[in-house]
This record gives sequence, structure tokens and C-alpha cells, in this order.
Amino acid sequence: MSATQARITAVDTYDIRFPTSRELDGSDAMNPDPDYSAAYVVLRTSAGGHEGHGFTFTIGRGNDVQVAAVDALSQHVVGRPVVELCADPGTLYRDLIGDSQLRWLGPEKGVMHMAVGAVVNAAWDLAAKRAGKPLWRFLADADPAWLVSQVDFRYLTDALTPDEALALLREGKQGADDRAADLLRRGYPAYTTSPGWLGYSDEKLTRLARKAVAEGFTQIKLKVGADLADDVRRCRAARLAVGPDIRMALDANQRWNVAEAVEWTKALAEFDPYWIEEPTSPDDVLGHATIRRGVHPVKVATGEHVHNRVVFKQLLQAGALDVLQLDAARVAGVNENLAVLLLAAKFGVPVCPHAGGVGLCELVQHLSMFDYVALTGTTEDRAIEYVDHLHQHFVDPVTISDGHYRAPTSPGFSAEMHRAGIDTYRYPDGRFWTADATPGEPGTDKEGHA
Amino acid sequence: MSATQARITAVDTYDIRFPTSRELDGSDAMNPDPDYSAAYVVLRTSAGGHEGHGFTFTIGRGNDVQVAAVDALSQHVVGRPVVELCADPGTLYRDLIGDSQLRWLGPEKGVMHMAVGAVVNAAWDLAAKRAGKPLWRFLADADPAWLVSQVDFRYLTDALTPDEALALLREGKQGADDRAADLLRRGYPAYTTSPGWLGYSDEKLTRLARKAVAEGFTQIKLKVGADLADDVRRCRAARLAVGPDIRMALDANQRWNVAEAVEWTKALAEFDPYWIEEPTSPDDVLGHATIRRGVHPVKVATGEHVHNRVVFKQLLQAGALDVLQLDAARVAGVNENLAVLLLAAKFGVPVCPHAGGVGLCELVQHLSMFDYVALTGTTEDRAIEYVDHLHQHFVDPVTISDGHYRAPTSPGFSAEMHRAGIDTYRYPDGRFWTADATPGEPGTDKEGHA
Repeated sequence: MSATQARITAVDTYDIRFPTSRELDGSDAMNPDPDYSAAYVVLRTSAGGHEGHGFTFTIGRGNDVQVAAVDALSQHVVGRPVVELCADPGTLYRDLIGDSQLRWLGPEKGVMHMAVGAVVNAAWDLAAKRAGKPLWRFLADADPAWLVSQVDFRYLTDALTPDEALALLREGKQGADDRAADLLRRGYPAYTTSPGWLGYSDEKLTRLARKAVAEGFTQIKLKVGADLADDVRRCRAARLAVGPDIRMALDANQRWNVAEAVEWTKALAEFDPYWIEEPTSPDDVLGHATIRRGVHPVKVATGEHVHNRVVFKQLLQAGALDVLQLDAARVAGVNENLAVLLLAAKFGVPVCPHAGGVGLCELVQHLSMFDYVALTGTTEDRAIEYVDHLHQHFVDPVTISDGHYRAPTSPGFSAEMHRAGIDTYRYPDGRFWTADATPGEPGTDKEGHA
Repeated sequence: MSATQARITAVDTYDIRFPTSRELDGSDAMNPDPDYSAAYVVLRTSAGGHEGHGFTFTIGRGNDVQVAAVDALSQHVVGRPVVELCADPGTLYRDLIGDSQLRWLGPEKGVMHMAVGAVVNAAWDLAAKRAGKPLWRFLADADPAWLVSQVDFRYLTDALTPDEALALLREGKQGADDRAADLLRRGYPAYTTSPGWLGYSDEKLTRLARKAVAEGFTQIKLKVGADLADDVRRCRAARLAVGPDIRMALDANQRWNVAEAVEWTKALAEFDPYWIEEPTSPDDVLGHATIRRGVHPVKVATGEHVHNRVVFKQLLQAGALDVLQLDAARVAGVNENLAVLLLAAKFGVPVCPHAGGVGLCELVQHLSMFDYVALTGTTEDRAIEYVDHLHQHFVDPVTISDGHYRAPTSPGFSAEMHRAGIDTYRYPDGRFWTADATPGEPGTDKEGHA
């Protein structure tokens, strides 16, 4: 079969779970014991060679439901010509969000929408691999009109029209080559959440905060929201550890009502927090606007649980955000995140993506790097979250040096996991979990604990 | 085993699908070919006797994902003491929405949240059956303080506090007995969508619209939004058929952008539409507020796809709604719908529930009847949607006479389906579907087509 006739032959899915809860990695006020997991997708082709890899991130239970949702989409994917798919992932994206029967289960939110994101991201991984470029470069090199064609403007035109998007992307092309060279030299700013998990002792927090500064990070993040007295003590310890010049963000993980968010944040203001993240429900646009007015000059950040472009649009329209935290795998993949980046650019709000979890750092770096090179042209007040867990499972893991993500150079979306890790952590039949289920014989491969 | 020791022993689930797409029943601008389906749940107990029945409604593909989501919740249900569960369904509701790992898949939206709704509604069905009352009466007879305890006020207190809710419910108790008697005598107002499906011919539309008026309905609803010229023609035909005194609601099923919604609605204003329903994305609170300002005096209605109480709160706060259309099975069941009814009462916005589908009429009538008897005390400008499909599959089907829902008198939530229907329409292994899959031997039981 010739390459031009090659088709997608299968959508393989894997339920992969890491036992992170055992060390309280990732613990916060709403998520005390996450087992970082991925509903992992491989698009196989009849061309041989490249595969498309993608996933959505969950924290354990329900990862099987997420896998079932991806499986429900596979009928839309299998049989597509590879060349057409890679030339226009937007058609796949529209077909997936447009399946009228599946749309009823959202629309465009929750399990089904995250499943769309996993599949769409896998298609972009395949497209970038076939182009021989890392995704950030694949996007940055693309024609602005083509990028606009990848966005679904339904429900957006009261805030952003295709013509406005085209103008932003054309402007972004000016000086893109210089910025790409700069990116390859310096990398993209990162901040770290590793010191601040709620389950960590003050001693561990202090030690990791100092380590973060020594490693070149200029911003750290602490989880708050479970107990005010604890938060005061932990913020004081962290501020003492890092000194006055390091930005210290706080993250409440949706714990509060609106008034409570304002009061609690003010009670921590003496420690000079940079932003308060997810102060309340991610669905509460008006609540975030009220909180933002109440906690100024502390900034308000949210986005990792914002379920689609329509909510991001409103957060921007309502002046509810200082910092937009898109997630690579919560919305419907690269296509919808292009819309979110364009909205943020239009409204002049900096994007500091959510990352961590399983492979979210690997994915989202490409979006921020594209934004710098070929859309907003700046990294000012922007930084990608960094958490040092589970990167060893990826074929092209992120590299951090001097508080910056190094720009990936391997083709693709950095989404591919090592086969050994998949085989070990497949749930419930992978080696780790079957060994773990044997009394007196705990899982033998603990590398996932990081 | 004594009754006080009885526990929930199993959560049985069924993927039930009716082939409604073959007659274009239920067709609209976004959903051209729905196969009305239910992810159906039975709570079995060790007490024998009563079971709890519940479901969530889907339109075909993905019903298996919905069933998988219910299955993921069953660990929280099996083993619960029946007496405790029925005395306080709110604890189950909070445990289900509070599972931190499953919450990541929302939070409180889409597939996982609808699954919670199915299970929670089944628990209320069980509780009402054990109390020997139809659910509306079970709720209306309940102590106001207990009803308040069934609501989760997280994310609501900037709009509605527990004290305010208690005051509303105490006020609602005044005259409740008289209203219950009135309800049993007159029923609750209904409007009908049966004439207006987009796939119907003008002749069928006209015939069914006249029939609706003859049957005592004072409001009908038409699907619009696919083609303006068609809509003008259909609205003219419908208005001619029903005369000037019948309310004619229009439903765009999320088809439009904000500006388009205003323009399109104005283009149909000459036919005196009563409301425009789902003019745009159900997530777009600010968009609905803009549309409402633009289409006045046509009213704006939405809610069947509003995914939780936080979005309803904002729609009310933003003045985005004239009519609130809650759905019995989209949010997390009776508990969350109590919050929605209380919010609507606080803001003085009439509730006209979404119904139709599979069994949504059977469920939601109880919520409106409770609202009339023991919360707002009025049916003015209120009506429950009615669609005459699939009722024959229910053990206690709705009864409509003279344009009113008759108040159910059998104990429970009217959620239970006949065993024969379940066995026939189980997908893919029920008799209808296995016969349908045999070449030359189409499904022999077509009663689902209604």
C-alpha cells in the first residue's frame, strides 16, 4: 500500500495508573490521594512507521470510564486517510465534537470532551511526526490562514472573529524566526509546584522550596485551602525559605465559596502571594470576577478544569482572570487550545499553563512555545507549571534547566510513553498491579513514585 | 435479616436504546437522528420488596459510556443500610460528587455527573416507595430543615444561603394542603413539543398543532435554527393552525452564536413566539444575558443542558433567563434539583422543566408538583414539557388530560420500566436489536416508535 493510501487502522487504548497516592505526591485540598493516571491512545496506521500518541490525564478511579469514552470515538477515526488527517486535523476535531448523539453527553465537557482531546492530540502528534518537527515548530511554521481553519468559532464570535484571529497570527509571524532561535537557546520559563503539595511536612516544603530557588526557578506554588492556620504556617515557612523576590503562587483547588475565597486570600496577603489559583468552582465565571475584585492586588488564576473555549471566553469577557491556565488535555486538544490561546491574546491575558500529572508538561510546553514564537511573541509574566513526576516514562521527556523548559527538538507532541512503562502500569493487569495484588508481595517497580 | 439491617446489595445497570431515529421523532437542528436511550439503574436490596429505579437519558451512541460511569459509582452504593440511605439520600449524593478521583472527570458535569443523577434518583425512588408516597408528596410533606440538609450549598452561598432556603421552604408550607388537593383535582399545566420536530412535514406539523389545541394544550413548541426560510414557513403554518391565543415557544437547540441568535429570533418575532429556547451554548451565561436584552419581549429559556447548580446560579445572577428549564436527570438528581428550584424561587424565575426523551416526563412532574405544593405555591407561567413518546414502557406512566399532567399517586418517582421493555430494547442483546441485526428480519417490536 502506498503512503498516500495509508489509513488509520486502529485506535488502541490503555488504562495506565501510577500509585502516586502512596507518597502524597499531588495531594491538595480537594484531591487528598490521587493516583496519577492516563487514558492513553495510540493511532495505528497502515503506513507503518509513525503512530499518533495522545492521552488524557485522570487521577485514578474512573480512568476506565475515560478509556470507554475514547473507544466510543474510534469509529470516527478508523479508516481515515493518514495524509488527509495530518493535513487537516480540524476535520477530525469537528467530526468528534459534532457527533450529535455523543454530543448529548456534554456538550463539549467532561468525560466525552476529554476523550476527544486525547484523540485529537494523538492526531497532531502523528501530523508533527510525519512533518519531522516538534509540534511547537509545526504550529509556528504553519500558515496563519490554515491555523484559523483549525479553530471552531461557534460560540466565540462575540469575543473573537476569524478575521481578528487571522490578524493576530499574521502579526505573530513578525520576528518568529528570531524568537525560535531565542527559544532554542534559552528555553521557556517554568515555575514549580513540587515543594507545595498539601501532604508534605513543613520540613519537606522548606527543603524543596530552597532547592527550587537553587535550581533557578523564580516562582513556586503552594497548595492551600484545607485549614487556614496550616496555610499561614506553611506560607510563612515558604516565604522564609525563598526570600522576598521569588513569586509564590497559591492554589486552593476549588475549595471555597466566593466570599470565603476573598477572606482566606486576604488572610494570606501578608506573605505576598502572586496569584490565587482555582479559588472556587471552575464553572463560576461571575464568582471569579467577584473574587478578582476582592483580592486585588493578588492575581486570580484558573483554567485547568475549565472545560471548553466557551467558558474561557466568558472568563475573559467578565474580567475574571489575571492568568489563564489552559490544560493540554482537558479541552478538545490542540484545536480548541488554539482558540484559547487566540482568545487570551485578544484580551491580553497571559497564559501560564497547568501541567504536572502524567505527561501534561510534555504536551503543554509545545503550546506555550508556539504562543511565544508565533502568536504573542513574549514570555513576560508567563511560565509553564513544572512538577518533577513520572517524566521517566516518556520517550521524549521534558528537560528543565535554570528554571526553563528546553525546547523539544524531536518530531511530534512528546506524548509517547515507553512500552515498558505501559506494560508495568496498565490497570489492572500490568506487572505492578498484579504484583501489588499478591499478599506479601508489593509492587516491585516503584519508579513511578518519583 | 430484619428490615433495619437491610442493605443495598447491587447496582444493576442496563443499556436501553429505542430506535426513534427511524421516524425522526425528536429531530432538531442539532440532533437530526436521536435514538432515545436510557442508562438504567436498579438498586437492589436485601430487604426484598422495594427496589430503587433511576436512569439518565441519552440519545444513542455513548449510552454504554454512561452505563460504565454508573458502574464506577456502584462501590459507593453497595453495602449501604437501606434505612439510613432513605432517611438521608443527601449523604449518598455528597459521597458521589465528593469522590475526589471521580470528581476530576468533571467536576460535576457531563457523563460522571449524569451517572450520579441516575443513582441519586434511584435512591429517592426507593425512599419514596418505602414511605408509600409519590415523590412529589414525599418532598412536600418533608420538614423544611431536612430538605435544606439535602442541598449542597458549596458554590451557592453568594446567591442563596441555607437560612434563605429554609425561609423559602417554611413559607412554602403555608397552604400546602390546599394546593395538594388542588393539584390532585386539576393536575399541573403541560405544554407539548410533539407537533414541532424539525423532521416533520408542514402537513404533519399543522395537523399535530391543531390536535394539541383540541386536546387542551395552551402552549406548543417548534424546533427552529436549521434554515431561516423553513422556520418562517413553519412558524407561519403553526401560528395559523393554533390561532393567536396559544403560546408558541421556539427551540434552537444551541444552534446559534450570540449575534445570530438575536437576529434570527427577531426575524421570527412577527409570529409572536413566547420564548426562544437554547439559543446558544448552554455554557454561555453572558451570551444568554446579551441575547435576552436583544430579543425582548420574546423570553429566553434554557436549562436542559445546564450541567449543574453553579451554572444555574450564574444564569439567574446575570439576569440571563426568563424561564428556567431544569432536567430531572442531567444534574445530580433530586438533591441538586432542590437547589435549582430554591435558586429559581429566590430569583423569582418560573421553572418550566425539560421533558420528553425516555421517562423524563415521568420524573420531572414530581419536581414541579413539589414546587407548586410546598415551595413557590403557584403554577402561573409554569408548564412542564410533554412529548408523547415511550410512556408505555413505564409501570406508572404520566397521564395527561386537558393539557395537564395528572398528579401521580403511586409510591415512588415513576421511574420504573416494565421488564418486557428492558428485555426487548437492551442494547445490543435485546430482542429488538438482535432481530434487527438479522438480514431480512427487521425488529419485530416497533412499539417504541410511538
